[in-house]
Amino acid sequence: MLTRTQGDARRYATLSDPFPMWRGGVLHGARIAYETWGALNTRRDNAILLFTGLSPPAHATSSPQDPSPGWWEGMLGTGLALDSSRYYIICVNSLGSCFGSTGPASEDPATGAPYRLSFPDLSVEDIARAGYETVRSLGIERLDTVMGPSLGGMVALAYTALFPGAARRLLCISGTQAASPFAIALRSIQREAITSDPAWRGGNYPPDAPPLTGQRIARKLGTVTYRSAAEWQQRFGREPIRSDMASRDPFSSEFAVQGYLEALAQRFVRGFDANCYLYISRSMDRFELARHGAPVELFRRAGLESALVIGVVSDLLFPLAEQEAIARDLTTAGVATRFTPLPCIEGHDAFLVDLASFGRAIGGFL
Amino acid sequence: MLTRTQGDARRYATLSDPFPMWRGGVLHGARIAYETWGALNTRRDNAILLFTGLSPPAHATSSPQDPSPGWWEGMLGTGLALDSSRYYIICVNSLGSCFGSTGPASEDPATGAPYRLSFPDLSVEDIARAGYETVRSLGIERLDTVMGPSLGGMVALAYTALFPGAARRLLCISGTQAASPFAIALRSIQREAITSDPAWRGGNYPPDAPPLTGQRIARKLGTVTYRSAAEWQQRFGREPIRSDMASRDPFSSEFAVQGYLEALAQRFVRGFDANCYLYISRSMDRFELARHGAPVELFRRAGLESALVIGVVSDLLFPLAEQEAIARDLTTAGVATRFTPLPCIEGHDAFLVDLASFGRAIGGFL
Repeated sequence: MLTRTQGDARRYATLSDPFPMWRGGVLHGARIAYETWGALNTRRDNAILLFTGLSPPAHATSSPQDPSPGWWEGMLGTGLALDSSRYYIICVNSLGSCFGSTGPASEDPATGAPYRLSFPDLSVEDIARAGYETVRSLGIERLDTVMGPSLGGMVALAYTALFPGAARRLLCISGTQAASPFAIALRSIQREAITSDPAWRGGNYPPDAPPLTGQRIARKLGTVTYRSAAEWQQRFGREPIRSDMASRDPFSSEFAVQGYLEALAQRFVRGFDANCYLYISRSMDRFELARHGAPVELFRRAGLESALVIGVVSDLLFPLAEQEAIARDLTTAGVATRFTPLPCIEGHDAFLVDLASFGRAIGGFL
Repeated sequence: MLTRTQGDARRYATLSDPFPMWRGGVLHGARIAYETWGALNTRRDNAILLFTGLSPPAHATSSPQDPSPGWWEGMLGTGLALDSSRYYIICVNSLGSCFGSTGPASEDPATGAPYRLSFPDLSVEDIARAGYETVRSLGIERLDTVMGPSLGGMVALAYTALFPGAARRLLCISGTQAASPFAIALRSIQREAITSDPAWRGGNYPPDAPPLTGQRIARKLGTVTYRSAAEWQQRFGREPIRSDMASRDPFSSEFAVQGYLEALAQRFVRGFDANCYLYISRSMDRFELARHGAPVELFRRAGLESALVIGVVSDLLFPLAEQEAIARDLTTAGVATRFTPLPCIEGHDAFLVDLASFGRAIGGFL
């Protein structure tokens, strides 16, 4: 779905066939798109697996093969917090997404048509397993670190629970062991905005006529939940909307913050498939680490040597208490754990914005 | 719009004709629905004017004429915080609403058809002026107290700015001098859910086919912003939805919190006109007390003897800092002001839920 004019650094891992889905069903001929930076050492023990949030592709940062900026540009590279001169860093596009990995927008080999809603139920556990198989396909037995922000943090937790011994260290950023009812409410309203758009057509929209209105509303609400009131007070206050974005439609946008939401939403909906959004969003509501056992027991048998858990005080969607609980359970399980609550004002998305604070915490741990 | 099987306690005040709207335009033959409790004393100085939040009618509490429960049942009555044995309490249905007061769903006398979007721009100031005229129509020169929660708190502030000397005391609950960009974002997404519903038809929906889907989404999001994450963690946790509310539709609700939102939304959209919602919601975004002058100067010349400002620590939509700012400006202006931050976990709606805490604060002041 993402058009690249400047090359493509993606590689593809073929998943086991059939690939068993955690809630039932299987995939045939599924694959994962990933990118790598740095080099695997001879002992094959310097690999970091990076899972993403809900929407990014595997392109975490620019490279000679793809010089376009990545979603974590500035965090990853030679001499940066995720130092590609020391580590072999693998970023995967999540199973269920639409940037090269198999998902609801992919072709079902059984029919030759896109899966759409015939794609089996997607779970955070499936995203973890697909990442695990990607790592194994690269000849890596044990990761130095499994990590991720947001959804990626949930996936990293699932990874340690499902594959004991598969990672030496855990780095969980703004993640949770289970979504709160508040987060579920906010995400389910986003999904309802999409499924209520007549253009969604029960998931059977033509590729050139997706449910853009519902997707725009969903993304705007998503953006609100990813940031914070304090940040917007600083950035926008009550500034009026830029005159070229104003309209004479009834109830059109009047404030700068509305223009910002609109611009972000327009950019997003052009790139992201609506059904993929629905599947991944729901997987976040459903995830519950405790389904696999008591978290302390899971962490005890995960074979982790150490862990870093980062949270942000202004995070509405994954509140700090949830990261605190992860760190507490890791500590109780005997894992040497550092808990770093950051005072950033950018909310859940702070890991994308305050690279200095996050870079210090991550670089210091690694 | 509200059907009452058990009588109707509403009375009506006729507004000046023409009634000038603050942003331009006039209304002809406009009226305000209100209810009263208690008796006006001979000095006519024991009246309390109560403005409501976005959606309630004038029926704040039950009475012999209308024994159905009101929106603030338990707060108002003989011996209660708003003591009708001491005070003459007037609650108005806001101008622009649809429970008896003139609004976009009312008939335009010039055409005989509903105003719909031909209703002039509505401002918080217009709601204040309509309340003021209602009070004057009852032969009251000066209120003991002007008060309101949420939107009602904004209206009460506008009242003191527009009508110096018209109230001896101010009681502002979970209000603000100006909406934050965060609140604007959350409300504008609600409006967009309604205006994006094809059934809205540019405001020209038939009375029996309103834009229910958009209204339901809007109300769900509204409800999220009125409560708090901590409350829902306590109430719902990750409980599944009640089996009779579950559905086999793709992406249907799975958690109890989703069922709660759906039930509230269904109840709301049957009663509230979509265009009225749009008008009142936008008036809240636009309100800015400072348009009338520096707040400290406004409060200085408002003729207030004292004020109580209440806020709630868990309020997302009208955060505590905004009530703190009101209290600070009142104090600077020389008004004897009590600022009461309440530790309730119910968020913005706490005034409807935690009657004990609010009752103590309000009763203590009055």
